[in-house]
Amino acid sequence: MKATIYDVAKEAGVSIATVSNAINGKGKISKKRREEIFKIMERLQYQPSVIASALTGKKTFTLGLLIPDISNPFFAEIARAIEDEAHQSGYSVIICSTDNKDERVERYIALLESKSVDGIIIGTGIDNMDILSQLQSRSVPLAMIAREASSLAVDTVVADDFVGGVLAAEHLVSLGHKRLAVLSENLKVSSSRERIRGFRQGLADVGVSFDDNSIVICEYKVEEGKRGALELLQRGGERPTAIFCCNDLLAIGAIQAAKEAGVRVPEDLSIVGFDDTILATVTDPPLTTVAQPMEHMGKLVFKLILGHLQNKDSIRQRIVLRPELTIRQSTSHVAGEA
Amino acid sequence: MKATIYDVAKEAGVSIATVSNAINGKGKISKKRREEIFKIMERLQYQPSVIASALTGKKTFTLGLLIPDISNPFFAEIARAIEDEAHQSGYSVIICSTDNKDERVERYIALLESKSVDGIIIGTGIDNMDILSQLQSRSVPLAMIAREASSLAVDTVVADDFVGGVLAAEHLVSLGHKRLAVLSENLKVSSSRERIRGFRQGLADVGVSFDDNSIVICEYKVEEGKRGALELLQRGGERPTAIFCCNDLLAIGAIQAAKEAGVRVPEDLSIVGFDDTILATVTDPPLTTVAQPMEHMGKLVFKLILGHLQNKDSIRQRIVLRPELTIRQSTSHVAGEA
Repeated sequence: MKATIYDVAKEAGVSIATVSNAINGKGKISKKRREEIFKIMERLQYQPSVIASALTGKKTFTLGLLIPDISNPFFAEIARAIEDEAHQSGYSVIICSTDNKDERVERYIALLESKSVDGIIIGTGIDNMDILSQLQSRSVPLAMIAREASSLAVDTVVADDFVGGVLAAEHLVSLGHKRLAVLSENLKVSSSRERIRGFRQGLADVGVSFDDNSIVICEYKVEEGKRGALELLQRGGERPTAIFCCNDLLAIGAIQAAKEAGVRVPEDLSIVGFDDTILATVTDPPLTTVAQPMEHMGKLVFKLILGHLQNKDSIRQRIVLRPELTIRQSTSHVAGEA
Repeated sequence: MKATIYDVAKEAGVSIATVSNAINGKGKISKKRREEIFKIMERLQYQPSVIASALTGKKTFTLGLLIPDISNPFFAEIARAIEDEAHQSGYSVIICSTDNKDERVERYIALLESKSVDGIIIGTGIDNMDILSQLQSRSVPLAMIAREASSLAVDTVVADDFVGGVLAAEHLVSLGHKRLAVLSENLKVSSSRERIRGFRQGLADVGVSFDDNSIVICEYKVEEGKRGALELLQRGGERPTAIFCCNDLLAIGAIQAAKEAGVRVPEDLSIVGFDDTILATVTDPPLTTVAQPMEHMGKLVFKLILGHLQNKDSIRQRIVLRPELTIRQSTSHVAGEA
């Protein structure tokens, strides 16, 4: 592990503030002590650039993280990655679960500003984008994760939802599926729209047709996925042989619906999810799903906001990470084609 | 929802600091403005006691929360409850994932102290208890959740692990099970020891014998639970008809092992878990498990530490919450007794 300011302080038997003062030539610290600390920094190969430059300002070394719900595994895994990366640089992270409600977003932002956090990472849905532009006008450093705010100049890390949809389509087509359906969150959510757009494109590229009536919209909940999938399975006419679900929770609901309807997964129905949280590994069958690189996304968004803190004039970036398909056991060849 | 200082500030069109100053008779604020704020407080039925008393000191309104891993659903659900309760009182929570490593615990504590947090809630395992006694000697307010430190005078909220074990035993015995086994975490963990002690007691109370060889120890991981359960299922002699698993992850592993070994759950093997996180609802079959009241535990531990912050001389409490058995579909009558 890379040496941190904590290691230097521990080795020198001083506080991290003293190490910081030594680096910045501030505070009451003897020349001898300072040189000792520098020797330890050298020996431990400690790179002080980040901490040193930050400590010279009146920073609080604290960031706010606004997400819909820390008890949602997707956001818990993102939060863990941000926390780890932040801790390496001496930052800590205040968790703010918004339930995607603007009222809660506004309250949390007021709280974070009253604590003079150095910046805010935003992974929550916000209806009223004015909230963010007001934050920017007050010069609060921002970064977005897993959410877009294209109207704002703000550092952003997202997975390529469009490509994720394409990957799901290609996988299902390669298994011979031609009667396809989609379970999606509300289409107000830009990531869902992109996933479906990619899915359509993947089908169109190989000449497989797709009917808009095969999209069922659900809330972001297992029970809703179950309801939506039952609707698809119980319609008259030919049943779909595969369902692409825009997140893992909906896919879990679809597996439950298939069980209830006496439809075997994957023999009679293939199911693909999106996210690849811990949930995807515990379902039966384990879920084939489009994996978002959650750990990488979390680490990157911290690096972006840190860059912003170090240089206000840095050019804003939008980093789009490529998802990968994780094939488990919820997908198989269309019956008769195995 | 109860009115908070934010509501008063918003209604009055002032900052929360101004509301606080009005309450405490501090700062530059006209008599007229102060009276207006008091009227709004009255109208909104805002009870300022908590915030007001806290704001008079040099508080940071920030707490640290040390847990093994925010991406573990049990701790994510606890963290969400603490966050919600804290937010109601104007506090925010810094998340610290320790991986149960003392080195990380010490680093995080140094970081939290450098930020002058008002208190630290501890839900992580710590090998070297001196870390906590040193914290106490520096007068940092502490509270424990889901962990015990009986050598220290510290506010504590735990579920009654012993009773949880009894409930699991009673349930299985009522279904006719007599050949029972246990999958447990390392017995260094006090909660695991208590769960097993309760399970034994529940069996002894009704004269069902239990052999120590039927306990398999695993790490806290799904794969480990699977390995342990396979060991139990592949032993010579009579196979157990039921396994009590000391947490949901191990129970998920046991379900996977049964599937691999061609043993049907629950027809041939009943499985009981412990915790009742979101994972218990997505397994197949859904998991019968001892439910810890996670939300209630999180809310209570915040109230305890807040009480401590308001009155340093308050008597320390250890609150033990009764768990409940949530019966789903992973348990059934012994074959032939249905």
